[in-house]
Amino acid sequence: MTLDIVIIGAGNVGYHLANALTQNEHRIVQMFSRNAQRFANIPPSICNSFTTKLSQLNPSASLYLIAVSDDAIEIVSPKIQVNPKAIIAHTSGATPSTVLQNHPQYGVFYPLQSFSRQKAVDFTKLPLLIDASDATSLQTLLQVANSISQHVHPLTDQQRQYLHVSAVFANNFTNHLLHIAHQICEQNQVPFEVLKPLITETANKIQTHPPRSVQTGPAIRGDQKTIDNHLALLHNNTELQKMYGYLSKSIQGDLDFKSIK
Amino acid sequence: MTLDIVIIGAGNVGYHLANALTQNEHRIVQMFSRNAQRFANIPPSICNSFTTKLSQLNPSASLYLIAVSDDAIEIVSPKIQVNPKAIIAHTSGATPSTVLQNHPQYGVFYPLQSFSRQKAVDFTKLPLLIDASDATSLQTLLQVANSISQHVHPLTDQQRQYLHVSAVFANNFTNHLLHIAHQICEQNQVPFEVLKPLITETANKIQTHPPRSVQTGPAIRGDQKTIDNHLALLHNNTELQKMYGYLSKSIQGDLDFKSIK
Repeated sequence: MTLDIVIIGAGNVGYHLANALTQNEHRIVQMFSRNAQRFANIPPSICNSFTTKLSQLNPSASLYLIAVSDDAIEIVSPKIQVNPKAIIAHTSGATPSTVLQNHPQYGVFYPLQSFSRQKAVDFTKLPLLIDASDATSLQTLLQVANSISQHVHPLTDQQRQYLHVSAVFANNFTNHLLHIAHQICEQNQVPFEVLKPLITETANKIQTHPPRSVQTGPAIRGDQKTIDNHLALLHNNTELQKMYGYLSKSIQGDLDFKSIK
Repeated sequence: MTLDIVIIGAGNVGYHLANALTQNEHRIVQMFSRNAQRFANIPPSICNSFTTKLSQLNPSASLYLIAVSDDAIEIVSPKIQVNPKAIIAHTSGATPSTVLQNHPQYGVFYPLQSFSRQKAVDFTKLPLLIDASDATSLQTLLQVANSISQHVHPLTDQQRQYLHVSAVFANNFTNHLLHIAHQICEQNQVPFEVLKPLITETANKIQTHPPRSVQTGPAIRGDQKTIDNHLALLHNNTELQKMYGYLSKSIQGDLDFKSIK
């Protein structure tokens, strides 16, 4: 099944999606960006028709993928005036599909990863989360997703939003803790290099074990002597002391997860 | 340079150290454990002389590596009565070398990793942090360390303690955040599988970039709308709401790292 697809947005997500879809049987018949400079880096093998005006969108494609910033989706959506059989889908994890409900068929085509233009993306390993307004559109979007990724899951709006919160904990917040570790090392002339194998190992372990089952460290051991030593070492930085104490208590309490949803 | 080494402690650290040292030219002339059952799993190719009594330690080795729990180091150390030329070193990240100062030569031989018996350890990639009471002992310990690892760093007691705090942030606390992400997924029937590539990518990025330079997410973008949405999603769990808000603020404040040491 080859689809004619228009990509709205030529940033990192739009570029990488266009590239992956082109390499897997689909045709990118047009790309839109407000900023014409974005088109300069897109080779003709990916797409050779561009516009900076939504009023000039090619009206006859089967699928319109909106790959703009979250805030811009609601602004862009009503300006997409195309054939009534088309599916309009956005690529945002945080945005409900219903912001597109002015269209007859709509959905979500969400690649869970942070992209940068420079780095090649292996879409076959990238999770794609799919939702749609109706069974036929869902089937079409799943087919397109399966043509570029081996990790496709249908998720409802609500599930996708909780996944997005989880990703903030698993990626953004963990990266911040790595930044803190980096700063503690730098301030004490300890090479951050030393921690890198441990960080890799932490990520590797949870590929095969539930994270709680591989939790280590003074908090889970109830080793108050080491906790007190660490708090004393951080005595000049009350912010870090507070965070150390707070996260240690959270590990020991194991929180109450009975009612997250 | 082949050394005769006694390993005090036959737990995971003792076992893996004995194994790596044997494979790299050294002789493990004796192993001690209070618990004789530990010896059953140690093949003769690693060691064939065991004792459960510190009073029966082989007195003529060059190096005694103490691989017991942190609390037990101070109890074990005075009972090590051996030749005065020997180096006595412990393997703890959190314990000062000076708890061994009753010995003429002492030091630290700290492998930064959490071990489990089942899993083979590639010591060549494992960071080893070394300290010693004197230049000659330091040289000997560095030579032994370099014979089994490509990542050997001399670190003072104080640097090693700060490294240990950093490791709590980089490993224990990040693992706890992965546990939280896991729980949010489970409670909402979202497969945790979906997050695994992102977690791997987070660990991979910091191998080549300072963590702060690859920080992403709503907090660093100042995307208050998404932050508010996420807080609303967590409305049934005030503990998680609090943590989400706290870590987001910490990312935005970038903390004050001027005075960690």
